[in-house]
Amino acid sequence: MALKVYADRMSQPSRAVLIFCKINGIKFKEILVDISKNQQFSPEYKAINPMHQVPAIVDGRFKLFESHAILIYICSAFPGVASHWYPSDVTKRAKIHSVLDWHHANLRRGSAGLVFNTVLAQLDSHQSYPQVVNQAEGILLRSLSKLENFWLKDGRFLVGGSQPSIADISLVCEIMQLELLSAKDRDQILSPFKKVAQWIEDTKIATAPHFDEVHGVLFRAQKRFRERMKTQSELKAKL
Amino acid sequence: MALKVYADRMSQPSRAVLIFCKINGIKFKEILVDISKNQQFSPEYKAINPMHQVPAIVDGRFKLFESHAILIYICSAFPGVASHWYPSDVTKRAKIHSVLDWHHANLRRGSAGLVFNTVLAQLDSHQSYPQVVNQAEGILLRSLSKLENFWLKDGRFLVGGSQPSIADISLVCEIMQLELLSAKDRDQILSPFKKVAQWIEDTKIATAPHFDEVHGVLFRAQKRFRERMKTQSELKAKL
Repeated sequence: MALKVYADRMSQPSRAVLIFCKINGIKFKEILVDISKNQQFSPEYKAINPMHQVPAIVDGRFKLFESHAILIYICSAFPGVASHWYPSDVTKRAKIHSVLDWHHANLRRGSAGLVFNTVLAQLDSHQSYPQVVNQAEGILLRSLSKLENFWLKDGRFLVGGSQPSIADISLVCEIMQLELLSAKDRDQILSPFKKVAQWIEDTKIATAPHFDEVHGVLFRAQKRFRERMKTQSELKAKL
Repeated sequence: MALKVYADRMSQPSRAVLIFCKINGIKFKEILVDISKNQQFSPEYKAINPMHQVPAIVDGRFKLFESHAILIYICSAFPGVASHWYPSDVTKRAKIHSVLDWHHANLRRGSAGLVFNTVLAQLDSHQSYPQVVNQAEGILLRSLSKLENFWLKDGRFLVGGSQPSIADISLVCEIMQLELLSAKDRDQILSPFKKVAQWIEDTKIATAPHFDEVHGVLFRAQKRFRERMKTQSELKAKL
């Protein structure tokens, strides 16, 4: 029975797992858990992941959630994954754990927090507080600066790699979520970080054509979101 | 040259690494990075950890930060660490990664967020917003509920273990930070979670006498903080 990947391509960790499986030629079945329809709260999915988040995997009778844990599991349990994704060398592996752990409270918190409390708050009409937005933006900018000046200082990829690891896929998929902001806001945030921009390109190339294919949903959402935001602004201007 | 552990025992991930090294008989030198004196921002420490956080380790020429990455590195690089701390079995290891990853955005975020924005905000006179406090408390309570009903459902220790793993030390040290709240607030938060209370006790016993020894600083701070809070309340009442 093939690996099952429960995912919604609008979720950045879902995309990371899907791209990783595809680039490594792993046979899997993608099962959509549509967040926009609250399918992550269904009783069926609760039995897979009681935290109601995507992605999750089922491999035979083994269930697992949390995308970093999933990526490491696939590297370890599936033969044929090239070693650069998750090297067996203890120090190289430790550095990958370090950047993945750092990611949680920094880049992910800043990026996901900003998108959730700005564009998604506006579109879904949920409450958003200026101090929460400011805090998220501050965390995001500091995280991008650390990527530019520390994590990418020694190589094309994170922690000095000349080839990508699971950390590159995970963190680049996170940054791609900023595509949901207005083009102006996105550019203002990302434009100072030249190494980060090059690293995103390098990761896209290293995972082509799967990177663009898996991100197709995000770009279609971007178009839809920007049109809705424009309509909302025009309506406001008329009032 | 012995392993160097840069730590402040007031920090929960610092305590986790110290307790872990002690219970496993690993020779190391503990180097205090006093957060109350902003020593994490010194140029010397920046060269160890540019993120200005504790703990960090230096093992020969190898530097590492992020406590989960450190715990895994020590399990992998130092002979003699019992296998239950970080089993080599791929599925058991994956479950430990899963709970450690979950920890970042859940228990840690809730617990650290609540302590920082209540008792530490009051003592340091830094700004705190009610919605931020409420959000942190909500995340903490949901996390404790998931510990009680999911992570501890199959055994005495996390993810069904009959012996502790690195995840137990990490998460229990996080919960211990709630000792800095008033006794009333701490009890109100923790008392509904009976399995969590038993698990904290079991982890203390499994890591005795190091658990209490390393937490000594926290308990002394608790006493000091509660006295200062009492004095502040009395002063307010007089105004």
